[in-house]
Amino acid sequence: MPTKPAKTSLPPRIRITNPRPIVDCGRHPAKRTVGDRVEVTATVFRDGHEILGAQILYRGPDQRRYESAPLELVNNDLFTGSFEVTASGRWRFLIEAWSDRAATFRDELRRKVEAGEEDLTSELAEGAILLGIEDLDVETALASTVSDRHGTVRSDALELDVDRPLGRFGAWYELFPRSFGGFAGVERVLPQLAELGFDVVYFPPIHPIGRSGRKGKNNTLGARPGDPGSPWAIGSEEGGHDAIHPELGTLADFDRLVARANELGLEVALDFAIQCSPDHPWLKEHPDWFQHRPDGTIKYAENPPKKYQDIVNVDWECDDRQSLWEALRDVVLHWMSHGVRVFRVDNPHTKPLPFWEWLIAETRAVDRDVVFLAEAFTRPAMMHELAKIGFNQSYSYFTWRNSRWELEQYLVELATEDVDYFRPNFFVNTPDILSAYLQEGGRPAFEARLVLAATLSPSYGIYSGYENLENVPIAPGSEEYLDSEKYELRERTIDGPLLPLVARLNAIRRANRSFQRIDDLTFLETANDQLVAYAKQSEADTVIVCVNLAMAPSEGLLVVPPDLDLPDSFVVQDLLTDETYAWQVGGNYVLLPPGGAHVMHVR
Amino acid sequence: MPTKPAKTSLPPRIRITNPRPIVDCGRHPAKRTVGDRVEVTATVFRDGHEILGAQILYRGPDQRRYESAPLELVNNDLFTGSFEVTASGRWRFLIEAWSDRAATFRDELRRKVEAGEEDLTSELAEGAILLGIEDLDVETALASTVSDRHGTVRSDALELDVDRPLGRFGAWYELFPRSFGGFAGVERVLPQLAELGFDVVYFPPIHPIGRSGRKGKNNTLGARPGDPGSPWAIGSEEGGHDAIHPELGTLADFDRLVARANELGLEVALDFAIQCSPDHPWLKEHPDWFQHRPDGTIKYAENPPKKYQDIVNVDWECDDRQSLWEALRDVVLHWMSHGVRVFRVDNPHTKPLPFWEWLIAETRAVDRDVVFLAEAFTRPAMMHELAKIGFNQSYSYFTWRNSRWELEQYLVELATEDVDYFRPNFFVNTPDILSAYLQEGGRPAFEARLVLAATLSPSYGIYSGYENLENVPIAPGSEEYLDSEKYELRERTIDGPLLPLVARLNAIRRANRSFQRIDDLTFLETANDQLVAYAKQSEADTVIVCVNLAMAPSEGLLVVPPDLDLPDSFVVQDLLTDETYAWQVGGNYVLLPPGGAHVMHVR
Repeated sequence: MPTKPAKTSLPPRIRITNPRPIVDCGRHPAKRTVGDRVEVTATVFRDGHEILGAQILYRGPDQRRYESAPLELVNNDLFTGSFEVTASGRWRFLIEAWSDRAATFRDELRRKVEAGEEDLTSELAEGAILLGIEDLDVETALASTVSDRHGTVRSDALELDVDRPLGRFGAWYELFPRSFGGFAGVERVLPQLAELGFDVVYFPPIHPIGRSGRKGKNNTLGARPGDPGSPWAIGSEEGGHDAIHPELGTLADFDRLVARANELGLEVALDFAIQCSPDHPWLKEHPDWFQHRPDGTIKYAENPPKKYQDIVNVDWECDDRQSLWEALRDVVLHWMSHGVRVFRVDNPHTKPLPFWEWLIAETRAVDRDVVFLAEAFTRPAMMHELAKIGFNQSYSYFTWRNSRWELEQYLVELATEDVDYFRPNFFVNTPDILSAYLQEGGRPAFEARLVLAATLSPSYGIYSGYENLENVPIAPGSEEYLDSEKYELRERTIDGPLLPLVARLNAIRRANRSFQRIDDLTFLETANDQLVAYAKQSEADTVIVCVNLAMAPSEGLLVVPPDLDLPDSFVVQDLLTDETYAWQVGGNYVLLPPGGAHVMHVR
Repeated sequence: MPTKPAKTSLPPRIRITNPRPIVDCGRHPAKRTVGDRVEVTATVFRDGHEILGAQILYRGPDQRRYESAPLELVNNDLFTGSFEVTASGRWRFLIEAWSDRAATFRDELRRKVEAGEEDLTSELAEGAILLGIEDLDVETALASTVSDRHGTVRSDALELDVDRPLGRFGAWYELFPRSFGGFAGVERVLPQLAELGFDVVYFPPIHPIGRSGRKGKNNTLGARPGDPGSPWAIGSEEGGHDAIHPELGTLADFDRLVARANELGLEVALDFAIQCSPDHPWLKEHPDWFQHRPDGTIKYAENPPKKYQDIVNVDWECDDRQSLWEALRDVVLHWMSHGVRVFRVDNPHTKPLPFWEWLIAETRAVDRDVVFLAEAFTRPAMMHELAKIGFNQSYSYFTWRNSRWELEQYLVELATEDVDYFRPNFFVNTPDILSAYLQEGGRPAFEARLVLAATLSPSYGIYSGYENLENVPIAPGSEEYLDSEKYELRERTIDGPLLPLVARLNAIRRANRSFQRIDDLTFLETANDQLVAYAKQSEADTVIVCVNLAMAPSEGLLVVPPDLDLPDSFVVQDLLTDETYAWQVGGNYVLLPPGGAHVMHVR
């Protein structure tokens, strides 16, 4: 029954535990952005009193060999160090640790000398070998800086997904190209959008729209002649996911639009919605990709009692799923080949996770810098899992977090426990979400929510109409817009009273590094539940934001805590108004109009 | 460059994340005790709106096949369930989950019916196949309880180390057999120890003691004739780790002692100390097991400036380490063959972790019920790792946690984040630790610490002399006893003024299940920092303990919070005095003498 201990090599005496950053025990990569310093920590220890050394070994996506960065002991076996990620793609790092017998010898010798021991002959004979110094004396021994590595061990490798800065930081503007006269019209407003400081212009699907089951105005069944249908009812005899709706323009027009956007520092983001109008070419070409009932009918999409009579879903478990998956991948590769590097993915939580894992790997193999935004509004486990398996950023619960307590609780979660994998994109509205707060609060609510989104989340977005304060729902208690442009043609221009605030906020975000990260956040006391206040601090700047959530003036005492490490008194400048104030560590009186905000830069 | 999706089988759509109990991502087993219900939780989800089913599969150490226990959905994809562990040894469990298409069908049908949809012919045709019912109508469909399992997935298996109740719950008494006249004398006091309610009688090493470097009284160098030496200086020409010191008795005497202890419901625990006196037989038989200096001398043990001139350490990295490891294992197996099933391991943190992993596995293969107590006082990482790799219980920082804040902070850690693997044994003193609190506080301090240890930790222990209030240190600022019996012969009997309190506490612990676990703890407000108070609740009982940490009377308001689910007013009986009090949810006046305590049982 008794067995023998492993004979060949000495089992490792050093343990490396709790390495960070890590996501789900290393099953998923942590996210970082090009230019980040990755702060690494690990607990490294062994039996006895040996002095240990440790380092980080890391390599980028194009490196075969590991580079090293030092790890230093902080206390209680905790080591910390860092390295910079300089390219996008998949990085690996691990921790290497060893016993330093030379340092251990010196440490013991020093303690003996300090304790007044005099006969250290035996110790010095031992040290002479370790340090490689003949006729070693105490002084020489203690002055030596030789170190050696004994019993070296390595942790498992951990992975990082490093993406370009847009993966983390960007301002998005969503518009329906048909409301601007198609691609040509959009091209005309691009300079305005660039000047407003946007980074991404996102279009709902631009493909031919089906006629079968087409929805009329306000989501009614039975479209009338001239009703354009929902862009998400993708596919008609004019083509499917790789085609362009003829009324928007041609592929050449699209290419020109993308090129013009890029010239202006803008990117075009497309919607990737895996669903088909009953008129989509795939239904004829690949009927086996769709689920049929026993009576031969195809199920339209539904989530009872909600019905989507204008679309059908693919059957992920069909026998021919391999060609289905490949066709879907080819749709994304097609648009990538036309310059699109940002995709907003419609309802990814209703499609299999293994599909997304495969698709994202396929696209990254072509272009590491393609960015996927997950439009999932569902329970936390799936929201988090989509982020873990590779979506660069995610829609969030922001639109439903309106009170100070809700905002604080949610942002603390995003800035701490979720921060290594889940990057929120705070849309203030979407074609599907006109929040009750905006419906009821009017302009002050729009202003407050805009400041919150732009200053709390590095990525945020608005859907056109927000700047015009559009806030009439289709029915009381509904979050759907009345006369939504999902179902009808609108004529839009880029105007609206909120645009100066938008432009100012986007400029502020670009100029102040603190707004480009989410994990530098400290909420501040205000002595008034209607005033939410927070500091954000980077190496480059400290900003303090205070937003009045009420539709009435609010006053309070904004408390600057000592742990922000600010001088006892200092000057703040409101970046929205350029006014300056003398503030101090401790309470600072603030009075804000309905929905008003301070965005204070600490000088 | 593009690759094909996996062709053969559909990749699993269901994810099982965050399974519990789990220790270090599943690298180590969680600990449980025979008779425990293991509460299992996991997050189980997939894409879409399918209804999922899940269960636990588990098996004990002697089972080949898994048994199942149900998992129920609580909310937000969290499933919970439980199973009972009925035998000691290594258990395995995993989570299995599936899509229930029949239940999903019924759920969708119900929602459509509730929404007033009338033509459900296609749905019912589909349901007929799923439910296996011909000519299905709505009523029959909704009443059906058929379920099916589709796309079943399994989590990785997780492990549990289940030990006998003594692994978690027991009262220990430590004594030096030589101070009681050897084994025969110990045998005479066993009935007293049993009557006092102890479960384990633990002996420091019982082996022959070396003469070279033997320590004299009070740890002085150069023993005088008649000085017995430290029992931890193991080995002389009379034998090593498998021999008995001739002055204690014979192996037959030891066997009789063990048998008598067992008759009385007591167990004898031995010390396993891996170190040798310079006179240990191994130094001659296996000189290569020890580390020699270049000048040929063997290093004695030291942790500069501390010196242990009477012992040498083994060289774990010697070429012949295989036979060294086997010899050490055989020492433990030897004493196990003489009825010893509990070992207190001396300084395990100065020996290689892989050795302990191997040794514990070796001994468990012979007897699953052998219990190892780790006597490690070192930094948290090593303390925790020793517990994770298999030590059933561990010495703790308890002796140095004396203020209310310290106790609360430490106990909350033990009762929550450490609870799945680290079981503390709260010794109030040891031959090496006479805490400053005891030195300074006298009898009130001894009483307070005894009540704290016995009521906060399921395992606790006292080293003899505690009951006699011995509290004179060798020097100011030292935790060493003056005239410690580590270095000299003492004559002891089991007496001392604290024994009635010891007996009472041990009886209370056995009668009230709440004292047999650590994770049922709630600290209570007392409006006085000198009064620490806590409730412990099991299915069987609720107890409330309040201890006065001060050497003066203390009064306060002990607040019973509503979340203990007690009636608004209730009667408590002090199990130490049998007095009863009318208490209520809210504040209850308490007044305690110096070091005094209430141990209230809620009726």
